[in-house]
Amino acid sequence: MNRKQLQELLQSVRENNTSIEQAVNNIAATAIHSSEVAQLDLHRELRCGAPEAVFCEGKTVEQCVTIAGQFVEAKHTALFTRCTAQQAEAVLAVLESGEYFPDAGCITYSPNGSLNLAHDVVVVCAGTSDLPVAREATVTLNWLGCNAELISDVGVAGIHRVLEKSVRLRTAECVIVVAGMEGALCSVVAGLVASPVIALPTSIGYGASYEGLAALLAMLNSCSPGVAVVNIDNGFGAAMMAARIVNPARNLQE
Amino acid sequence: MNRKQLQELLQSVRENNTSIEQAVNNIAATAIHSSEVAQLDLHRELRCGAPEAVFCEGKTVEQCVTIAGQFVEAKHTALFTRCTAQQAEAVLAVLESGEYFPDAGCITYSPNGSLNLAHDVVVVCAGTSDLPVAREATVTLNWLGCNAELISDVGVAGIHRVLEKSVRLRTAECVIVVAGMEGALCSVVAGLVASPVIALPTSIGYGASYEGLAALLAMLNSCSPGVAVVNIDNGFGAAMMAARIVNPARNLQE
Amino acid sequence: MNRKQLQELLQSVRENNTSIEQAVNNIAATAIHSSEVAQLDLHRELRCGAPEAVFCEGKTVEQCVTIAGQFVEAKHTALFTRCTAQQAEAVLAVLESGEYFPDAGCITYSPNGSLNLAHDVVVVCAGTSDLPVAREATVTLNWLGCNAELISDVGVAGIHRVLEKSVRLRTAECVIVVAGMEGALCSVVAGLVASPVIALPTSIGYGASYEGLAALLAMLNSCSPGVAVVNIDNGFGAAMMAARIVNPARNLQE
Amino acid sequence: MNRKQLQELLQSVRENNTSIEQAVNNIAATAIHSSEVAQLDLHRELRCGAPEAVFCEGKTVEQCVTIAGQFVEAKHTALFTRCTAQQAEAVLAVLESGEYFPDAGCITYSPNGSLNLAHDVVVVCAGTSDLPVAREATVTLNWLGCNAELISDVGVAGIHRVLEKSVRLRTAECVIVVAGMEGALCSVVAGLVASPVIALPTSIGYGASYEGLAALLAMLNSCSPGVAVVNIDNGFGAAMMAARIVNPARNLQE
Amino acid sequence: MNRKQLQELLQSVRENNTSIEQAVNNIAATAIHSSEVAQLDLHRELRCGAPEAVFCEGKTVEQCVTIAGQFVEAKHTALFTRCTAQQAEAVLAVLESGEYFPDAGCITYSPNGSLNLAHDVVVVCAGTSDLPVAREATVTLNWLGCNAELISDVGVAGIHRVLEKSVRLRTAECVIVVAGMEGALCSVVAGLVASPVIALPTSIGYGASYEGLAALLAMLNSCSPGVAVVNIDNGFGAAMMAARIVNPARNLQE
Amino acid sequence: MNRKQLQELLQSVRENNTSIEQAVNNIAATAIHSSEVAQLDLHRELRCGAPEAVFCEGKTVEQCVTIAGQFVEAKHTALFTRCTAQQAEAVLAVLESGEYFPDAGCITYSPNGSLNLAHDVVVVCAGTSDLPVAREATVTLNWLGCNAELISDVGVAGIHRVLEKSVRLRTAECVIVVAGMEGALCSVVAGLVASPVIALPTSIGYGASYEGLAALLAMLNSCSPGVAVVNIDNGFGAAMMAARIVNPARNLQE
Amino acid sequence: MNRKQLQELLQSVRENNTSIEQAVNNIAATAIHSSEVAQLDLHRELRCGAPEAVFCEGKTVEQCVTIAGQFVEAKHTALFTRCTAQQAEAVLAVLESGEYFPDAGCITYSPNGSLNLAHDVVVVCAGTSDLPVAREATVTLNWLGCNAELISDVGVAGIHRVLEKSVRLRTAECVIVVAGMEGALCSVVAGLVASPVIALPTSIGYGASYEGLAALLAMLNSCSPGVAVVNIDNGFGAAMMAARIVNPARNLQE
Amino acid sequence: MNRKQLQELLQSVRENNTSIEQAVNNIAATAIHSSEVAQLDLHRELRCGAPEAVFCEGKTVEQCVTIAGQFVEAKHTALFTRCTAQQAEAVLAVLESGEYFPDAGCITYSPNGSLNLAHDVVVVCAGTSDLPVAREATVTLNWLGCNAELISDVGVAGIHRVLEKSVRLRTAECVIVVAGMEGALCSVVAGLVASPVIALPTSIGYGASYEGLAALLAMLNSCSPGVAVVNIDNGFGAAMMAARIVNPARNLQE
Repeated sequence: MNRKQLQELLQSVRENNTSIEQAVNNIAATAIHSSEVAQLDLHRELRCGAPEAVFCEGKTVEQCVTIAGQFVEAKHTALFTRCTAQQAEAVLAVLESGEYFPDAGCITYSPNGSLNLAHDVVVVCAGTSDLPVAREATVTLNWLGCNAELISDVGVAGIHRVLEKSVRLRTAECVIVVAGMEGALCSVVAGLVASPVIALPTSIGYGASYEGLAALLAMLNSCSPGVAVVNIDNGFGAAMMAARIVNPARNLQE
Repeated sequence: MNRKQLQELLQSVRENNTSIEQAVNNIAATAIHSSEVAQLDLHRELRCGAPEAVFCEGKTVEQCVTIAGQFVEAKHTALFTRCTAQQAEAVLAVLESGEYFPDAGCITYSPNGSLNLAHDVVVVCAGTSDLPVAREATVTLNWLGCNAELISDVGVAGIHRVLEKSVRLRTAECVIVVAGMEGALCSVVAGLVASPVIALPTSIGYGASYEGLAALLAMLNSCSPGVAVVNIDNGFGAAMMAARIVNPARNLQE
Repeated sequence: MNRKQLQELLQSVRENNTSIEQAVNNIAATAIHSSEVAQLDLHRELRCGAPEAVFCEGKTVEQCVTIAGQFVEAKHTALFTRCTAQQAEAVLAVLESGEYFPDAGCITYSPNGSLNLAHDVVVVCAGTSDLPVAREATVTLNWLGCNAELISDVGVAGIHRVLEKSVRLRTAECVIVVAGMEGALCSVVAGLVASPVIALPTSIGYGASYEGLAALLAMLNSCSPGVAVVNIDNGFGAAMMAARIVNPARNLQE
Repeated sequence: MNRKQLQELLQSVRENNTSIEQAVNNIAATAIHSSEVAQLDLHRELRCGAPEAVFCEGKTVEQCVTIAGQFVEAKHTALFTRCTAQQAEAVLAVLESGEYFPDAGCITYSPNGSLNLAHDVVVVCAGTSDLPVAREATVTLNWLGCNAELISDVGVAGIHRVLEKSVRLRTAECVIVVAGMEGALCSVVAGLVASPVIALPTSIGYGASYEGLAALLAMLNSCSPGVAVVNIDNGFGAAMMAARIVNPARNLQE
Repeated sequence: MNRKQLQELLQSVRENNTSIEQAVNNIAATAIHSSEVAQLDLHRELRCGAPEAVFCEGKTVEQCVTIAGQFVEAKHTALFTRCTAQQAEAVLAVLESGEYFPDAGCITYSPNGSLNLAHDVVVVCAGTSDLPVAREATVTLNWLGCNAELISDVGVAGIHRVLEKSVRLRTAECVIVVAGMEGALCSVVAGLVASPVIALPTSIGYGASYEGLAALLAMLNSCSPGVAVVNIDNGFGAAMMAARIVNPARNLQE
Repeated sequence: MNRKQLQELLQSVRENNTSIEQAVNNIAATAIHSSEVAQLDLHRELRCGAPEAVFCEGKTVEQCVTIAGQFVEAKHTALFTRCTAQQAEAVLAVLESGEYFPDAGCITYSPNGSLNLAHDVVVVCAGTSDLPVAREATVTLNWLGCNAELISDVGVAGIHRVLEKSVRLRTAECVIVVAGMEGALCSVVAGLVASPVIALPTSIGYGASYEGLAALLAMLNSCSPGVAVVNIDNGFGAAMMAARIVNPARNLQE
Repeated sequence: MNRKQLQELLQSVRENNTSIEQAVNNIAATAIHSSEVAQLDLHRELRCGAPEAVFCEGKTVEQCVTIAGQFVEAKHTALFTRCTAQQAEAVLAVLESGEYFPDAGCITYSPNGSLNLAHDVVVVCAGTSDLPVAREATVTLNWLGCNAELISDVGVAGIHRVLEKSVRLRTAECVIVVAGMEGALCSVVAGLVASPVIALPTSIGYGASYEGLAALLAMLNSCSPGVAVVNIDNGFGAAMMAARIVNPARNLQE
Repeated sequence: MNRKQLQELLQSVRENNTSIEQAVNNIAATAIHSSEVAQLDLHRELRCGAPEAVFCEGKTVEQCVTIAGQFVEAKHTALFTRCTAQQAEAVLAVLESGEYFPDAGCITYSPNGSLNLAHDVVVVCAGTSDLPVAREATVTLNWLGCNAELISDVGVAGIHRVLEKSVRLRTAECVIVVAGMEGALCSVVAGLVASPVIALPTSIGYGASYEGLAALLAMLNSCSPGVAVVNIDNGFGAAMMAARIVNPARNLQE
């Protein structure tokens, strides 16, 4: 249940089209969906502005299938991340209208129709090898109803490549910078724009990148203020932060 | 020079009150202010929405004084952070109208008058020992023209303390969570609100907190999406990110 | 040999049903069982309240089989942990009445009959992906004669899920909190109950979880006192600590 | 307010000696004590079995004094840990009946009289240099109403020293093992007793002890099950865990 | 060429059975054996008391075979360590009289006959899972002409197991202690004997053992003096150090 | 003794102005200068192109004075680095013509006259706080006979500052980039020039800079090839590498 | 486009053989080559003295093929590093004249003919297991037009092996030292020569080498000045730095 | 009590000059000396070949004085290490014949006369700054009755310095190599001699030496077998290991 659905229900109560008892049952029924393996927090969107997602790493195929079934029963939108091909095949057998994005490792499921895309987020990445992480971010943003333009391969070794994009970057409401190795792109971008910059380190690099640690530390130490950082390779998390930023009024006026 | 000053200047040009040559000189003169020790980036606010600040750690008193003098000459707003009492005394001798906040280690200087405070940022911290970092954030926010309410000592050991604040937290446009030790407050808050949460780890804790590393890692790994993290004890950085978030339209419509 | 068996033997000596020589031989024979690969410490239970277990990682199938044979010869209860399917198949061929729990990676063997379950330990875990570790704990607890209720998927991103369980948690004699990522659940639970909390970090999470390090540090730094921590993914160790706690009188009055 | 005080109040309500309105006010008044710097969680003992304590590191003398005044107003028992001589002097000026233990860095304050000491906890430490940490534990245990015998300088370099104490160790309800360097004492003790062992690493050692990291890791990896670990040099935390263990029935039957 | 062979050659020169020119050629020919991939240091034994060995990790099968051929040509004793089954098969096809020890991952080759075993080294290991590393040590010791008794599974969780061996341990000229997890066995042994103790950490353990780091740090921080440490899982290195210790006179009187 | 002095001596031998015996004595006398505390390697310049320097950290004032005396006796050029004011005062009392640079912590001593400055090295640093390290580099370069232009405060937060310097940077024979925090300047510079870039990380930054680790890792992972890195804060080492680079022919043709 | 091609084009313009419009188009057309996955920086050589290369790790076979096609279209020299056999097969199907070096994991492609080899770089490695990294360096050097002699297996355990090579090493313009384990070879070599030494750590070694960290730290801390370090196993990076060093005049006089 | 004293006592018993009761009392009285702060293990020498020493770090002056008094009462030889000037003054007031070595931070006390120096240990250190650690080793060796020659400042930057000492090094029974920075000296020495090499890393170096970690790792990874490592800056520990090595027969034949 999201804000809009709740507003409609309460309007219906006010207009006496729905009894109070029916409304109470209705709200209660959508609060949580429990199975032996998961307790889906179906009010997450109402409370936090975005629905719960499923992190597939460490879950068996059977557990993924069970959870997928819970979403079908609840007719609730769903996102599965870090989804292997094997998990995806089994989950899609349950989520008939679901869509799998193998380059992002994600499944999206929107049983009530897709959202219109709004807002303008730009995802810019330093190298071609960062694309899987960047794609996890753009798929998540689309699922959340946000436009997401992806600009690839503009690392600072050729600084003119990102400078050429600076006008475009300055029009975005929020910028996600995806980079491995030394992660320097994030500081350069944050010095060019006035919107918030979300730094998304990746695990790409030679030995002493330590699977993203070098980029992570670099981003935390950015000399350009206006940057905040999410976990290594966590495209999903970067997108969720961006969605909160570009929808600041959601929990205020709506 | 900020957007408003530039807009006024261009308006004056359009109305023929200022010659084109004068305007060019005026803009050029405010772009950069060089001394032997620093090259002040005075167009930073125009480009990034917030002016440059001075990080005093690692600078001699003499260098701080020189830089202060540059701001006086340029009649430009200034923020000095990580400022010791000794540095502060010398800097304030130069910045006559400057104000020193010893609990935050900051000096603010607004030669053109203070900004009206707008927007609603809440800074919530887990324990009393986190206050110096939280205060660096609130002083910076005020300097940037943002309201900043400070809620202290609501760590999760008594979860009811933060739950009691949840209505207030849900009305904020952006929340900064300040915590040392295990940094758990950040995940709890992000699960209660829909606005973006900036996680600010502090170096408070017993031995294996490793001067903020435990809190930093915890915040990067928050199970609540919608969180991004800044550097340990970096109240300034958290405030700069918050200011970019609550002013999202600045570089678009203005 | 455990306390009860020793008490019966000594009673039998006192009643002259067993000769002193027989008793000495009997005790000596059960003290240790040596093979080329292992020296089973069969008096462990007598001394420490719980019998020795076998950690299968790093052992060949042949070594596991040899050790299983030693337990059969000694008619001694056994627990094999971190047991792969291949190891399990070979070990079960020796331990005819043994039981394999593939979701926990454990084999239990109770040639003298199962223990009655007593005491009330609750194992609560933050996410579905933490279940294998949580199951290692519950299987071990059952083997040790303890009840172990498993509550799953109540991470702090939806704080109401664990708050709903707080009455149940407060009735437990001991609580084991299983969590990866930022491990915040442990601090919240320890602030809700008065019983000892054993924190069990798991290796679940994105890159900068560093395979459980983030959760481990968070738990060591819990702002809620009354918490102590075991090794990452060590469900067995958490269960052993819990068993010592709920049986405090074992080595005193019995 | 602790359980006993609440029980007496409710008894008084039942017997009509206290009006319901008075009781409500009374309970509410003792729930929390707020000042500008701290929100004392005075129901902590009721909920968790032990009252809140004050960690003085990172607090100014003024903040410590303010908090001390809050405890005096609330007539509430208090413990200040990590208290420097300068902080202690100022705090004791407020807490007239308080007592300072310089070797432990602690102040205890019991305005309603000291507790009778019960239960039997043994604190055993490997070397003389571990004593300050061990003393923080014993002072805390006494403040919580627990006996705490301190056995010093029985490191494993002379294994007979701890073996000589094994009978005494086996009679304790709970053992806290304090050790720096390689922390081996913890595994040896846990192999000798059946009660739970709390491992308390200290920062004593040569260079590669990394200020307690070596001992911390060793204790987390103890080959003796029945051990759980608290933070480096955290004598307070070890004592709080021990108190929960030896009072297991507190939140059940009382 | 070792000391004995050189002594015989020089004796032969003195007795005029070998011409000076022949002797020079003979010595030069045995100094080094070069191929495209390796420059065998065949005077290593003469200089350092033990011949060069071959570390197979990171080498292709072809490179191993080439090096094996060099030893055959030089009729020189050889040890191959960290040798996979595939590498071993190919190497043994070249070294006809070579012997493969799969549990140790080693091949030994003694074209001039095996050495008589002398001196008394004891290799004691904490658990069954440490055996492969311990076996690398004993195979190396035998190849160097040292006796090596292997005592297994006497970890400190049952301290009586190692105490029972203390008389035997005290008679050894040198003791190698092999342990993973917390590595405590090393400190206990060093407190029982007067001979030098070589600590050999292994990568066995749960998550926070960090593949032997916990044991390594523990051993470096041993509170028992008279211990020195070699690399994690480096059974070969421990054996080489032991051989230098038990042959102290080799480079002096011989 | 350097190459030029040796060449003159040999010329003198060839011309029979110096006897062979005198020449031998002369060379031998200048090879090494021993005292109880130091063995000065006076042929270092002959062999490696630059003379030995003295690292004062960890040395007593007395040891520094002794070493200074050795240089005076040998009439040999000297550089003292990491020299405190107290050490400097004592050393200058011995090295009468020595010069102390307090902002660089260095003393230079050139008893045979200063070198003419040649070659063109540019030292560019990101912020004012990096100046002490940058100055150690420029003082060392001058002592080695190299020009060293210092460009300060051009960090990437305002990318135009370094772009404005790109023409100048492209004319240098070698560039040293000095930066703390995220060290991004190094990658940007290396993408603008064709000369070798020496990356010199500094310990300036907030908590998670880990005293230069973040910058060090970033520089090692630079996405711009043509970069190599020296130790944190090691201005001396960067200068020594630069000197070897700009004098490539020294050990070939001279 | 490289310097020579640009010089020829401009000469042709001066001589009126090429129109200005044609020249502009020609330069613009060669500046960048974009596809969906990569933006090739074809002016890299003009700007930095060496062309862009392709790091294949983290790229799909399809992405590698696309990029290869871009080079073919642009008739531009190419280097693919970290190329698996599967990637290589697919890339070579596109780059018909390309050459694959499986021992180095590299493909080179020179559609305009190979460069003449000049300059004298020596790559010296400590052990046979370091060869793959050393070969990545020599293949890259050859592709860049530099001679590269490879000296293998001269680790410091037999110090005479490297001393025998010292005359050869002293004639090189630049030396790359490749070593894993403790990386000591780098300090020894830097003390023997006057040319710049590039230290290239490898991930070869036992447990506590931490996949090259030990060698990396050792090289950063070399007591021999005149050393700078590249990333672990980054043979490509070492070669790029060497090429910049031996061609110092490229961006100055040419 | 050491072996010799015990032998004399038993001889006296055999000859009937001492009664059995007297002997028992005598042995028991010397086994342990307890005070409130320390339990001196006076049989340590009998068991391990060397007496117990006192590590002064982390001990108060009062505790040091108490322990000193215990040694005086027991007429037992003593070594105090890591002793500050303030601790030393107070301790020497108790140990009248004690001797303080300020450069080593040690006090030795030999109430029964000094030992004759025997055996030949060489302590070789890389730089002047390593001397305090080296001196802790030589003072300890002398106290244990071993000769200890100290060779200083022969780091590998000038490899000829250590090569010149190789004949001397080859005659030593055991060599201790003391080095900070990259610790390369240890591998070079171990490749030159046949006696065991004890590697002693020091905390001397620039930033990324990490206070001895770089040297520690290098030494653990030495490519020269026959090396074992002690803790950073632990001169005492290196000396204790050396003493066990050069007295191998002590616990066998004596």
